[in-house]
Amino acid sequence: MLKAPDHQVAGHQARDGSLGPLVDGSGYFYKPLQNLDRGSKELAFYTSFNSMNGIPPRIRRFFPSFHGSETFQASDGSGLLPHLVLEDLVFGRKNPSIMDVKIGSRTWYPGVSDDYIQKCFTKDMKTTSMSLGFRLSGLQVYGSEESGYWKPSKKAVQSFTVEDVRLALRKFVSSDVGWASDKDTLPDCSLATRIYGGPSGVLAQLIELKEWFEDQTIFHFNSCSVLVLYEKESALRGKTHGAAVKLVDFAHVLDGNGIIDHNFLGGLCSLIKFISGIVAEANKALHGLESSADGLELH
Amino acid sequence: MLKAPDHQVAGHQARDGSLGPLVDGSGYFYKPLQNLDRGSKELAFYTSFNSMNGIPPRIRRFFPSFHGSETFQASDGSGLLPHLVLEDLVFGRKNPSIMDVKIGSRTWYPGVSDDYIQKCFTKDMKTTSMSLGFRLSGLQVYGSEESGYWKPSKKAVQSFTVEDVRLALRKFVSSDVGWASDKDTLPDCSLATRIYGGPSGVLAQLIELKEWFEDQTIFHFNSCSVLVLYEKESALRGKTHGAAVKLVDFAHVLDGNGIIDHNFLGGLCSLIKFISGIVAEANKALHGLESSADGLELH
Repeated sequence: MLKAPDHQVAGHQARDGSLGPLVDGSGYFYKPLQNLDRGSKELAFYTSFNSMNGIPPRIRRFFPSFHGSETFQASDGSGLLPHLVLEDLVFGRKNPSIMDVKIGSRTWYPGVSDDYIQKCFTKDMKTTSMSLGFRLSGLQVYGSEESGYWKPSKKAVQSFTVEDVRLALRKFVSSDVGWASDKDTLPDCSLATRIYGGPSGVLAQLIELKEWFEDQTIFHFNSCSVLVLYEKESALRGKTHGAAVKLVDFAHVLDGNGIIDHNFLGGLCSLIKFISGIVAEANKALHGLESSADGLELH
Repeated sequence: MLKAPDHQVAGHQARDGSLGPLVDGSGYFYKPLQNLDRGSKELAFYTSFNSMNGIPPRIRRFFPSFHGSETFQASDGSGLLPHLVLEDLVFGRKNPSIMDVKIGSRTWYPGVSDDYIQKCFTKDMKTTSMSLGFRLSGLQVYGSEESGYWKPSKKAVQSFTVEDVRLALRKFVSSDVGWASDKDTLPDCSLATRIYGGPSGVLAQLIELKEWFEDQTIFHFNSCSVLVLYEKESALRGKTHGAAVKLVDFAHVLDGNGIIDHNFLGGLCSLIKFISGIVAEANKALHGLESSADGLELH
């Protein structure tokens, strides 16, 4: 039984008769092929990427697994439409916290129409893409059983300033201390060292991805997003929190032609710098507390 | 006695009554303050950078040393004009090979006029800035005593394609085997491992600079160039070749405001990828020859 995904934070939604992706509740995510040949471009990317030798497993894990395409009734009732069959990235995750971060200071690319360039350009200038090299496209942060999710509206996220993004990246790894409802309550970043930091944390994964981007000249990932996911309750109980970094949205991928994707790489480095700053601060706070405790014992 | 520099490869030239920089033949380079307050911005940058604690010496060495400003008769005879007093980077170098590489896929920045954005945008699209993340602004490559310099005109350099840039980066570290006059002769990259490679080579310096750019959020180096210099004759004689990487042109530097310069960093990584590719190929060729020699001995 296909239905709209419960935890979609960005993109078109299959609700109220609109066209959007569907999930089957058993691990598959069905993404309708978009018009303007974007859908077929994304299908071509997945097909090509899937059959490519030489992509190491440590890099392949950043991409949703791909299982071909299937044609069935689209969510908007418009008739039969081919859908990409992808891994459902949130399948089996309980109350996942998710960020969709569109990478790159520029979301357009040479060869598209002037209208499209202008549309992207305006949005890149209005959002944080131009200044930060990335923008949030959507997010949901699980607070607690009582508070549920902090999930700002699409419109709210689109108007995020640099400071809003900085704050959201901190809220993402904070205990529910009221910041979801009260904007004067500062996030505590209590989960920063566990989720962002550590050998299998978000930062380590982003750095691994970055190293690939410093070298790979096969693809240019225009207008592509990094999805960051984890499970707060598991993290709070000291269990596996499933912190994962995934790349999604490949409708604008182009051949690299022997040139690195400097637009994506620059933005990724900017995101890394923000996240490493939060980890460093959290480590310092932990270390500072330990030092104080040591101090108390000594004197 | 002030005169126009012998080895200027880009920028305004103090010749034929035009305004440009001057040198005094004893190690100083005098750069006139440009109009449109760019000159005063560059002066402000040097003054601020010079007095800044916390810039490590390994990074400071990438910047020309700064010795204040002096007012004297400008080269175009227009009257008294303040000049930045800088280190003459080619002072004492015999027949230097020089490349001026303007870094960044975008040379404009938010806050400037629409006309200025449009002018920069058009040039970024026409040159390799957009595609490569950098463009050559000028270069001179010393061939030999007979052939002298290969120094394509400003117009020729401005119309360089991606392939032209790739070729120029190879010619830069090649023996004079006729490529300067005959476009069908391929450069041999015989100096690649010595000039680009090695612990104090160009690549090692660019990587050191890159690591700083991954972290520093003080400045955004808009429309700034990396200058690459070395002395071929010294290199051929196995002497110190003086391979150096320097940053120049700071009229468009802005405060970083806690954000890395992802535009510069992306372009720098792209340049690094090109140069490391040339080094890897040269190493492979060397290694291949050694392997063949081994093979001859064995069989």
